[in-house]
Amino acid sequence: MSLLIKNGTIVTAYDEFKGDILVKDGKIVSIGEKLDSMAEEVIDAEGKFVMPGGVDQHVHFSFDFKGEKVRGFETSNAAAVGGTTTVVEFVNQEKGKGLIDTIDNYRKSEVEGVAMVDYAFHGIITDTSTGVFDEIEKLPEAGYPTVKLFMAYKGMPFHSDDAALAKALQKAKDVGVTIMVHAENADLIDMLQKDCIEEGNYQPYYHAVSRPPMVEVEATERAINIAKAMGAPLYIVHVSTKGAIDAIVRAQSQGLSIYGETCTHYFLLGKENLAKENFEGAKYVCSPALREQDDRDYLWKSVKNGWLNAVSSDHCGFDWKHQKHMGEKDFRNIPNGAPGMENRLGMLWTYGVETGKITRSEFVNLVSTTPARNIGLDYCKGHIGIGYDADIILYDPKQKSIVSNENSLQGVDYNSYEGMEQIGKVDKVLLRGELIVDDGKYIGKKGQGKFIKGKPYGLSYKRF
Amino acid sequence: MSLLIKNGTIVTAYDEFKGDILVKDGKIVSIGEKLDSMAEEVIDAEGKFVMPGGVDQHVHFSFDFKGEKVRGFETSNAAAVGGTTTVVEFVNQEKGKGLIDTIDNYRKSEVEGVAMVDYAFHGIITDTSTGVFDEIEKLPEAGYPTVKLFMAYKGMPFHSDDAALAKALQKAKDVGVTIMVHAENADLIDMLQKDCIEEGNYQPYYHAVSRPPMVEVEATERAINIAKAMGAPLYIVHVSTKGAIDAIVRAQSQGLSIYGETCTHYFLLGKENLAKENFEGAKYVCSPALREQDDRDYLWKSVKNGWLNAVSSDHCGFDWKHQKHMGEKDFRNIPNGAPGMENRLGMLWTYGVETGKITRSEFVNLVSTTPARNIGLDYCKGHIGIGYDADIILYDPKQKSIVSNENSLQGVDYNSYEGMEQIGKVDKVLLRGELIVDDGKYIGKKGQGKFIKGKPYGLSYKRF
Amino acid sequence: MSLLIKNGTIVTAYDEFKGDILVKDGKIVSIGEKLDSMAEEVIDAEGKFVMPGGVDQHVHFSFDFKGEKVRGFETSNAAAVGGTTTVVEFVNQEKGKGLIDTIDNYRKSEVEGVAMVDYAFHGIITDTSTGVFDEIEKLPEAGYPTVKLFMAYKGMPFHSDDAALAKALQKAKDVGVTIMVHAENADLIDMLQKDCIEEGNYQPYYHAVSRPPMVEVEATERAINIAKAMGAPLYIVHVSTKGAIDAIVRAQSQGLSIYGETCTHYFLLGKENLAKENFEGAKYVCSPALREQDDRDYLWKSVKNGWLNAVSSDHCGFDWKHQKHMGEKDFRNIPNGAPGMENRLGMLWTYGVETGKITRSEFVNLVSTTPARNIGLDYCKGHIGIGYDADIILYDPKQKSIVSNENSLQGVDYNSYEGMEQIGKVDKVLLRGELIVDDGKYIGKKGQGKFIKGKPYGLSYKRF
Amino acid sequence: MSLLIKNGTIVTAYDEFKGDILVKDGKIVSIGEKLDSMAEEVIDAEGKFVMPGGVDQHVHFSFDFKGEKVRGFETSNAAAVGGTTTVVEFVNQEKGKGLIDTIDNYRKSEVEGVAMVDYAFHGIITDTSTGVFDEIEKLPEAGYPTVKLFMAYKGMPFHSDDAALAKALQKAKDVGVTIMVHAENADLIDMLQKDCIEEGNYQPYYHAVSRPPMVEVEATERAINIAKAMGAPLYIVHVSTKGAIDAIVRAQSQGLSIYGETCTHYFLLGKENLAKENFEGAKYVCSPALREQDDRDYLWKSVKNGWLNAVSSDHCGFDWKHQKHMGEKDFRNIPNGAPGMENRLGMLWTYGVETGKITRSEFVNLVSTTPARNIGLDYCKGHIGIGYDADIILYDPKQKSIVSNENSLQGVDYNSYEGMEQIGKVDKVLLRGELIVDDGKYIGKKGQGKFIKGKPYGLSYKRF
Repeated sequence: MSLLIKNGTIVTAYDEFKGDILVKDGKIVSIGEKLDSMAEEVIDAEGKFVMPGGVDQHVHFSFDFKGEKVRGFETSNAAAVGGTTTVVEFVNQEKGKGLIDTIDNYRKSEVEGVAMVDYAFHGIITDTSTGVFDEIEKLPEAGYPTVKLFMAYKGMPFHSDDAALAKALQKAKDVGVTIMVHAENADLIDMLQKDCIEEGNYQPYYHAVSRPPMVEVEATERAINIAKAMGAPLYIVHVSTKGAIDAIVRAQSQGLSIYGETCTHYFLLGKENLAKENFEGAKYVCSPALREQDDRDYLWKSVKNGWLNAVSSDHCGFDWKHQKHMGEKDFRNIPNGAPGMENRLGMLWTYGVETGKITRSEFVNLVSTTPARNIGLDYCKGHIGIGYDADIILYDPKQKSIVSNENSLQGVDYNSYEGMEQIGKVDKVLLRGELIVDDGKYIGKKGQGKFIKGKPYGLSYKRF
Repeated sequence: MSLLIKNGTIVTAYDEFKGDILVKDGKIVSIGEKLDSMAEEVIDAEGKFVMPGGVDQHVHFSFDFKGEKVRGFETSNAAAVGGTTTVVEFVNQEKGKGLIDTIDNYRKSEVEGVAMVDYAFHGIITDTSTGVFDEIEKLPEAGYPTVKLFMAYKGMPFHSDDAALAKALQKAKDVGVTIMVHAENADLIDMLQKDCIEEGNYQPYYHAVSRPPMVEVEATERAINIAKAMGAPLYIVHVSTKGAIDAIVRAQSQGLSIYGETCTHYFLLGKENLAKENFEGAKYVCSPALREQDDRDYLWKSVKNGWLNAVSSDHCGFDWKHQKHMGEKDFRNIPNGAPGMENRLGMLWTYGVETGKITRSEFVNLVSTTPARNIGLDYCKGHIGIGYDADIILYDPKQKSIVSNENSLQGVDYNSYEGMEQIGKVDKVLLRGELIVDDGKYIGKKGQGKFIKGKPYGLSYKRF
Repeated sequence: MSLLIKNGTIVTAYDEFKGDILVKDGKIVSIGEKLDSMAEEVIDAEGKFVMPGGVDQHVHFSFDFKGEKVRGFETSNAAAVGGTTTVVEFVNQEKGKGLIDTIDNYRKSEVEGVAMVDYAFHGIITDTSTGVFDEIEKLPEAGYPTVKLFMAYKGMPFHSDDAALAKALQKAKDVGVTIMVHAENADLIDMLQKDCIEEGNYQPYYHAVSRPPMVEVEATERAINIAKAMGAPLYIVHVSTKGAIDAIVRAQSQGLSIYGETCTHYFLLGKENLAKENFEGAKYVCSPALREQDDRDYLWKSVKNGWLNAVSSDHCGFDWKHQKHMGEKDFRNIPNGAPGMENRLGMLWTYGVETGKITRSEFVNLVSTTPARNIGLDYCKGHIGIGYDADIILYDPKQKSIVSNENSLQGVDYNSYEGMEQIGKVDKVLLRGELIVDDGKYIGKKGQGKFIKGKPYGLSYKRF
Repeated sequence: MSLLIKNGTIVTAYDEFKGDILVKDGKIVSIGEKLDSMAEEVIDAEGKFVMPGGVDQHVHFSFDFKGEKVRGFETSNAAAVGGTTTVVEFVNQEKGKGLIDTIDNYRKSEVEGVAMVDYAFHGIITDTSTGVFDEIEKLPEAGYPTVKLFMAYKGMPFHSDDAALAKALQKAKDVGVTIMVHAENADLIDMLQKDCIEEGNYQPYYHAVSRPPMVEVEATERAINIAKAMGAPLYIVHVSTKGAIDAIVRAQSQGLSIYGETCTHYFLLGKENLAKENFEGAKYVCSPALREQDDRDYLWKSVKNGWLNAVSSDHCGFDWKHQKHMGEKDFRNIPNGAPGMENRLGMLWTYGVETGKITRSEFVNLVSTTPARNIGLDYCKGHIGIGYDADIILYDPKQKSIVSNENSLQGVDYNSYEGMEQIGKVDKVLLRGELIVDDGKYIGKKGQGKFIKGKPYGLSYKRF
């Protein structure tokens, strides 16, 4: 089957030009002009920006917070309509099991036949008794070459201490596995949370009070120190604050392979949201916590300058009425996380590209090209180039809308960006050459998504 | 006329893939597979790396040092056989004349009808009495949107003081003109030179002694301070030493638009070359001076990390027998500069790519893609992409040779890299779709090169 | 009783001059010339340097390592003959008891009637279940206004986590209590120790291998981050490595009240000592571990520049034959710590003053004046000034000797500096006006030492 | 003759205590208690702070700005009533003459027999044709071991370029001469001044506009770079802005001997003063220019932390009616400089000590002890210690007054601090044991001041 996407303005991370894209058997085979004769079908992209499908390198379809589970891959069509064609899911190691077993099992039982976009996986170390550090060398072959550790969440099974982080880095560097961290100081948060509760401050707002920027800054600096000592690259997830960015920039200025992402909500939402009345603040409880305006301004500077290299959603689908309300009397029991996979591209386009904070090429780079590279999927994802998977979106810049949860596919009872204006809209989405979104509506099939193996980073090669 | 370059491995600054390139009327119109039917001619690139032609953003075909002139554009076929298809010439403002007049005049009288590769120009401010600062706003329209000032060379007509630099930056930023500087402290060099001469140290080696790294570091920091105060971007040419790189990195870490290049010889040649007997050392007299090994190692790190964004040749064709010998009794009279346009790609490939210090994509980025962007030529040069000029080289990685001046086209009686091994070779070169080098031999015509207008950087746009 | 010390060269932290000192009732009452008529007794100090008695702000007379105890205050005459007239003892909080109770009890049962020099105390937090953080506000009144926490020693009862450190800092700042830390990353040491043991590396040398500089650097940076967040001053004990000093200097450059000491052995002994055969290396097992030469060189620079403000002994009297041998098969069981109170002044004079690395005034400042200030004893100790305690030493710069354990009073079967040359010697020592050392021999009485209350630092006052 | 100062609270840079001071033949011979029997005369200092007389290391009694001269040593009793007993005068090298000749000549013809406080001299290099760099080695013997260069004032005879600064540093370091700089970028000021005038902005306020902080920051960084390259200590005079302080702190953090002072007016007066109507702004024209509030706040931090080590007056007695009015139509012709020697101690006490920003000991250190050390006068000046000159002030902390020019001895028609409140007052002043100020009135004799030779800094000794 061959298909021509015609007359669009193609935007890659590097350039922007008028041209046509010829797709065959799900791959991009030619780019240029006068390719009509080779195509059986034609999509007209006149007036649209034609970009690689989004790669959301940080989503949660299986996260469990104190017994409560998020919405799963059955909602992944929300990613599709948002312009994302590949998601990377974080999977917590099961107690007593290996990472590969855990992910294989989860993949077969809950993802295959369900996912509506392509997918890959990160493992999360939770049980060091299983020989998990020795298992790291087997991850590349299994196609899961990225592992996260949580420095935060004292007392939770998925919390890791510095020794675990160091050991993981030590083992990972020899085989091209990328270690990621959630960098917040668990001890300090625990102390500050107890202080809040003791003083009778149990409301959602105190989630932010008990997780001030310094707990992130300290842990980020510590993680970098450890990575440096181990001689290993490190990836910091969901960076939210100036001090942490500065620590990353300092490390990069020394030539260290230290990288980080931020997430949509850290640009657009703030600490003040947690103060909303009637427990509405609980909708905005995520970790790290939402920040003040100066941090948000600095985030724009950090993505413009390449100090952070990707924007993910950190999508986490807990509902408000039941799940968030677990913490009505104690913010520590509010499940952490907020939905967002559906809004990532639209929000970043509207408040980044349309305001002139970033260019269209930078947008593509942040939501698709570099994420694919971070995860080792750049051999087939994240770029409009010869040989790449035909994961392509047509973005119509002329449409305007207001974000509302009414038509959302995320399966949650609220939307973090409710009521905000959006400029432009994902009009069409192709997944490996097949149209899965048309006129903004999902038209694909359950289970159409495929597992994509991540490749390890090359040893003599600066990955990101 | 249409032409297909077939079966090669295409290397861009961003990716690398097998594919064919369809060229029509001097432009790249399609990239992909099965494009044969559209082409009238075919070049087989099997086994070759197909890359954008080099852009050498820093050459001297008109430089005059105390009355002695370098070889001119009649030697620009040397660039071609070296894989460079665009050169950017620095033109000194004539006394009493404007920059545009000077360049227009030079272009018409000495370049048009002579140049064998495409070309653009930078102006150099030498006479502030002409209202040259007010002229800056007219440069974009003339297509010369880059201006250099010399902080070095006390007492020379082309020396500029800090006020001139500040004024130029102030005027330039509003119209998207990029200011470049040669950053060395003129006063200190003058003092150190006199010290050397007074102590009877007149040999070429003392050129390096009297221009220690600190004179470059100081001037670089000063230039950055001034650019920061004026709120303007700044480009530092031929950065050669760690301290200057660190100053640039610190500026970038603050989000300032401060960029720099280095040159081939700073990687590969060192201070010890200036100590060669029988006045051989004079061949290596250039400014900044060649450095010690630790600086050279740091340069590799700096291009790998993107701290410096381009590698130019700073080509300067003075011969040794007559011109360099002017300074036989006083190193201050040795014309500064060394030839190198012919060797830039070969040397960087051999000692950068083949040793694993940089990747092929990074190579392309450093010698072609980013230079084109720096100069405002990226709308047509520096990339293998749809709509770009078909400036394309086929690099054969299997050939090995020894650098010798014997077959050089540079028109100078020595080669800085004489006797060094080269891996790979430029086999074919296309200039806007026409074959000008075949089997390593220049087959083009005098005057085939065209003037390419530089475009100013966009004001809301981080250029580089 | 009145006494005149005549004809000496008086050295204070600030100046140096010929003059006489009149002592009355244990206090310095006048300094100057022609004071003979006022004195009943005269000591001739001709040819001697007359300096304030040493204040050793970091000693261990009660430390217990896995059940083994160090020599106690019955050996404190060793401090006296070494020129130290005040020691500050670290006392571990007893399980289930408060800090004040613990120290009061220890003081009465084991120090009063025994000590041969004056003394003060630091508390060490080991049991947070006792409301110890709330007890901090009572410490100033008890005269124990300094508290240490151990970031090192995972699994030991005296280990503290970051929450404890933060809480202690938070409580301390309001009442002028100084928090001190032993800054090493407990988790990483634990991991590295296990790695060593698993690989069969059980010898003393691997104590140093498993405690590389970075474990100190990381913990120092973390402690500073926490102190900064809490808005509290912090004192880092036994700083041994460049990275930690740099972290302190960076903090000071921001105006933060972050200070640190180093110890005699970090200047003079090195990692290579731990490699000595026949288990001799165990003599040098202390924490942080001994370092390489570059760190030692940097320590001299750091005290010359005031980056570290004191030199203590960290005296710890474990014997080698029995106690150190606990770890013959596993370095983790070697009691940490080395003797040194007797040699502190002599070694620092010999290798610091006599080599020109520091001046005599700087020497006095490092071993006496600033330590007294650090601990809140500067109202009566550490200075030759009107109203101060007449704790005075006469140092004879002409004597030369070789350090030997034979005549040591430290009560341990080895001396860390065995065989090293010493220039100059403590000839006489006065404690509150009474001669306790004469001609280098201890002539005082058991129990002659007195408890000196520390005063809290003033809140609007930069203490150190 | 012997004299006892009794019952006062003695404040030194290091401590504070009740005690008596015995003075004999102009020197302090004893300090302590019960010294009455040795004294012929007694001064009762009950309720007063007894401190070393101020050392004002930066005054101008001979400065000439475009032909206009400041008030000379005949006004130096103003220093005395202000509590300053030693002033250090900057003497511009006469054209064609050596530094020593110039100073000797000035000293004999205009200072001896006139000065009412003790004095020393700094030379200022203005004519490099005289072999002045070779003369540097003779300065210590002449007792003038400090030399200043002006980086500012383009086109003025006393302007120096970077080569002169480097050469002076090179020569000075071997003989213990301290090089000082006025650090402002002359080129940039010149350009900015011309911009102002061209735009019709000729009023005093534009003096500050054309000398923004960055011109000081840049020159400070440049001077430090040059001093570092030359391996020489450097002293930066009248530091006024955060960026320059940060540059000094960075240098100190590397262990470099880079030091600086600030002046009274930079704490207390601001850029807004220059905007005063009716040409009143001209009273505040000095260089560097007065700054904004944030710089002023940072200055307090910088003296508290020891980043700047002295506070001088930079006293410069031009009158307003005639001399300042030279620049009525062009701020460039306003003589730079403001009076202040009379107010230095009172203002710093009132706005520093009384507000709790600095302690009394820090005050003494900043106005007396360290200035004496900076200049090599600390063998006899700046301290209340045995053997020091009996330059002593009695400060009465209970008096309150309003600054007014009415009773001023400065000989100028305005006072920079007019109308500001002062707490405390200099009650008595002794100059080498003789009472020259009593009850705040000058009672000494013209010519009572003596020349005090400065000593060079020791080579193995960190001077400041």
